[in-house]
Amino acid sequence: MERAHTVQLENLRSKVVDMGTFARKALGIVLQALVEKRMDLFEEVFEIEKSINQWHKQLDEEAVEYLAANGPVARDLRAVVSLVKINTDLERMGDQCVNVAYIGRDALRLNLDLNIPAIRTMFSIVQEMVEKSLESFVKRDSQIAQKVLLMDDEVDDLKKKVQNDMISEMKKNPDLVERNLSLILIARNIERFGDHATNISEDVIYTEAGQDVRHGGFI
Amino acid sequence: MERAHTVQLENLRSKVVDMGTFARKALGIVLQALVEKRMDLFEEVFEIEKSINQWHKQLDEEAVEYLAANGPVARDLRAVVSLVKINTDLERMGDQCVNVAYIGRDALRLNLDLNIPAIRTMFSIVQEMVEKSLESFVKRDSQIAQKVLLMDDEVDDLKKKVQNDMISEMKKNPDLVERNLSLILIARNIERFGDHATNISEDVIYTEAGQDVRHGGFI
Repeated sequence: MERAHTVQLENLRSKVVDMGTFARKALGIVLQALVEKRMDLFEEVFEIEKSINQWHKQLDEEAVEYLAANGPVARDLRAVVSLVKINTDLERMGDQCVNVAYIGRDALRLNLDLNIPAIRTMFSIVQEMVEKSLESFVKRDSQIAQKVLLMDDEVDDLKKKVQNDMISEMKKNPDLVERNLSLILIARNIERFGDHATNISEDVIYTEAGQDVRHGGFI
Repeated sequence: MERAHTVQLENLRSKVVDMGTFARKALGIVLQALVEKRMDLFEEVFEIEKSINQWHKQLDEEAVEYLAANGPVARDLRAVVSLVKINTDLERMGDQCVNVAYIGRDALRLNLDLNIPAIRTMFSIVQEMVEKSLESFVKRDSQIAQKVLLMDDEVDDLKKKVQNDMISEMKKNPDLVERNLSLILIARNIERFGDHATNISEDVIYTEAGQDVRHGGFI
């Protein structure tokens, strides 16, 4: 019985990782779509997000079944509660990718160029954040999770920089309004994608260390 | 034992409602701050959000303790899982209010006027959404929850309208860039606040009807 219980939990955990891998993939594709100006890739992001949404529902359901069947306590219970929350964060990462894809698709129709270095840098940091947050989850490693929390500050600073630069440009050249607004909104969505990686890392720290670091309680 | 278990769950539920009432209050105050251009009220929003964050942590902890102590199944189990999610949504409503307060505070420093009818209308619909979502939770009433789902579409349309109007104005008058960008961002945050009320309503439907309406499964 004990063993079946453990296998079931590991099974749930590995589904979380699969879902995270897809969220990471969606982020990569949306960046590629922006850089290569490819409508077909934006459409692919919408498809991936639909799958993520289905898994989100299914995983929630399986977590509830696990709780009902096993009535776990202590660390296993914390692990399942965290898993339900991480599931929500991954689903919202999908939402952020879709938001960026909508903005990108509209911009592409207007023939706007959104491929700027600061946005590419933001994507690349946030990609590392989601990879590290998933790694910390797989390895149950709070140290790796802590690193994600630091990277989040970097992304916040970049978002502010993009915003300020875009505003200055728009004021000088009103023809840039749609393009620069698109870039501001994309920067904000990418930053929020990063926030979800941060949430996942905080949940890992909570599960593994039993410490609640959310809302500035720890670092 | 059965009775203590029920009292404990009702106690958790009433804490969710208290937290929701505060999120609703924060939304009202941030609107008042925008309309009356009052820096002190923006500061009050930051304080309320800090309290919401504390309660969020505490309520999560109490839900875990409840699960560990009672190992609920069926409807009670679903109720607790939903409660943990609703808790997250309420905490994020607080975040949205803080986002608006930051945007509003910066705008006030630049002496920008953000008091426009479309934004006031959006606030008023979203206030009703949060009230109805809490009412549906208290009364365990899926019918009321369904109404919130419909109001969400109205808010989405308003957000799009604000965005388009603000873009047209900015293109004609670059002096409006900061002010109109602020209004676009506020509209997007208010719309997201509404999304959290929608999430709560979906969780109520899920708990009461055992039906998962998220991601377009029902309405």
